[in-house]
Amino acid sequence: MSDMKKNNIDVAFFSDPSTIHLMTGYLSEPHERILAFMIFKDATPILFTPALEIEDAKATVSNIQVESYLDTQNPWEIIQTLIISKGILHSNWAIEKQHLTVQKLEALQEFFPRGCFTFDYSPFMANLRISKSADEIEKMKKAGYWADEAIKIGALALHAGVSELEIVAEIEYQLKKRGISQMSFDTMVLFGDNAANPHGTPGERKLKTNEFVLFDLGVVYEGYTSDVTRTLFFGDAPSEQQEKVYNLVLNAHDAAMAKATLDMSASNLDGIARNIIADQGYGTYFNHRLGHGLGQSVHEFPSIMEGNEMPLVKNMCFSIEPGIYIPNEVGVRIEDCGYLDEHGFHSFTFFPTHLTAYTDFMKS
Amino acid sequence: MSDMKKNNIDVAFFSDPSTIHLMTGYLSEPHERILAFMIFKDATPILFTPALEIEDAKATVSNIQVESYLDTQNPWEIIQTLIISKGILHSNWAIEKQHLTVQKLEALQEFFPRGCFTFDYSPFMANLRISKSADEIEKMKKAGYWADEAIKIGALALHAGVSELEIVAEIEYQLKKRGISQMSFDTMVLFGDNAANPHGTPGERKLKTNEFVLFDLGVVYEGYTSDVTRTLFFGDAPSEQQEKVYNLVLNAHDAAMAKATLDMSASNLDGIARNIIADQGYGTYFNHRLGHGLGQSVHEFPSIMEGNEMPLVKNMCFSIEPGIYIPNEVGVRIEDCGYLDEHGFHSFTFFPTHLTAYTDFMKS
Ligand SMILES: [Mn+2]
Ligand SMILES: [Mn+2]
Repeated sequence: MSDMKKNNIDVAFFSDPSTIHLMTGYLSEPHERILAFMIFKDATPILFTPALEIEDAKATVSNIQVESYLDTQNPWEIIQTLIISKGILHSNWAIEKQHLTVQKLEALQEFFPRGCFTFDYSPFMANLRISKSADEIEKMKKAGYWADEAIKIGALALHAGVSELEIVAEIEYQLKKRGISQMSFDTMVLFGDNAANPHGTPGERKLKTNEFVLFDLGVVYEGYTSDVTRTLFFGDAPSEQQEKVYNLVLNAHDAAMAKATLDMSASNLDGIARNIIADQGYGTYFNHRLGHGLGQSVHEFPSIMEGNEMPLVKNMCFSIEPGIYIPNEVGVRIEDCGYLDEHGFHSFTFFPTHLTAYTDFMKS
Repeated sequence: MSDMKKNNIDVAFFSDPSTIHLMTGYLSEPHERILAFMIFKDATPILFTPALEIEDAKATVSNIQVESYLDTQNPWEIIQTLIISKGILHSNWAIEKQHLTVQKLEALQEFFPRGCFTFDYSPFMANLRISKSADEIEKMKKAGYWADEAIKIGALALHAGVSELEIVAEIEYQLKKRGISQMSFDTMVLFGDNAANPHGTPGERKLKTNEFVLFDLGVVYEGYTSDVTRTLFFGDAPSEQQEKVYNLVLNAHDAAMAKATLDMSASNLDGIARNIIADQGYGTYFNHRLGHGLGQSVHEFPSIMEGNEMPLVKNMCFSIEPGIYIPNEVGVRIEDCGYLDEHGFHSFTFFPTHLTAYTDFMKS
């Protein structure tokens, strides 16, 4: 890393699997085992994996020394030997404080008692991830395409009496059959008053006519995520309240999409959507941030929220997802993710957002 | 907690969602937000959640003060105010070092500069989780029942030309339709030589006759996990090598199941299975531990492996899963999870383990 010399760092120790994926191309979730990528000032980097994974790792990376440990070995002892073999002793380390647990830090401190572990690469990595490359944006477009497909599958499966979980099952089944095996997070399908709970989970609740169906879902495509929310109306005609709430959320969503520009602050963009909702007296029902970054993880730095004065920069990928939740009555959220450049915000998802009765939508 | 006074702890700060579930009944994964449960020597405990979750949390817990923060607020500042309001100032803390990140510890240290954060509750919690209650074992039996059902669904869906991902899709679809919406981990279905990679992932590979199909899967039932592996033979008759490898794994599996007793060491149990495989010259192909604890998480303390001299205790729940993987040729693993008591090991899963040609199995 270019700034290791400047900061006088001997060992940069990366433990976050998405950092390791970004830097080496190797993608793996070690669970309770140890996966680490170590960079040195003047020596070949080391990718350190559980023994089970060494063949996969070797097949993926190049110009990197791949080492591993068995379940019966102490991984920290092996790391110690490896690093000493590089001639590094009184070492100045950089770690990822947002990812490394206190226990793992203490293990490193035990094996490197004269090491200094104050430097944190987490903010650096978060910044590095903010702007996506053209290649990353291409993958996210494909992840968005499949998220749109998922909503389509769900919409086509709606009928009175179907349960939320049956719709979830149908979406994931059809996607898996088409080769998409991993969702970004647990697929959310919520009916009527269930959608009014922004943290609701799909269950056995059955669909009735004249209620909203909220889909919030995403897929992982070649290590990159998508995230989309649509609230469809199932029935003949929405009530006055349903229509009012829906169109208010849609206006807030569309305004934020249209007005997002480079160098505007995250807080300002949040305000554009929030003010539209607050001006109509629904401000307290929009009780979460406008959006979040995404990429290799579905929730990444930064938060698009009040008080975050960070400027939006070129090729940032983030969500715009205003919502109104009136407990036990109605819940609506509309979300698109996209990237920003000098021409504005470009969504990865395109499923229609205007309020149409379900039957009409399916005919079109 | 009974030992807070003994260890002179003012604040026990729990951050691991499964600890919080165990202690409060409230189950939630906060992702990048902050969820914490704080116990004090002489004051009402506090459950601290993101604002979005406060209603769910309040509805779940009793005799606990529930507090929350908005995305726009600094959660650590609010925690500081809450704790100062309890009259705690120069505080001695216990944390979960296995879960808490260095960044979060540093945030606590910033807001409690005179606090001491050396005491670690992770080993205590891991020990507490080792022995399951009767209620927990009941949930794990049900999780096991659904894992057996999942294998049955997968077995019935096998036919020449089907892909691994299609079988995964079918299993999860049928389970979701029956109300089981969460798997313990990404369902694994691997055919033939793919099964010889202990870290393989399901893909578009098509099933051919006369090869093994390895299923490794589990479900989450009321917060408790299951985990089972079966290797079915699809075809008319296994080759000599397939039969030899299969029966060797089965012997190792059955011997470990039969001989597991209270007070035996984890290392000894691993050795019982490992020696059977090593004696036939296949030791290097059994390149992982015999098993792992499970409960709220699918991988918990302890590892059933060489060198772990910890004694097996009553109502411990763990897996027994020997395997042989000959790269590019054949892979077999047979896994059951269960609990141990004075009568021996009681599996949560019962899908047949003897080697029968697939067509025979389906007739029976
Ligand atoms: Mn989102
Ligand atoms: Mn297992």
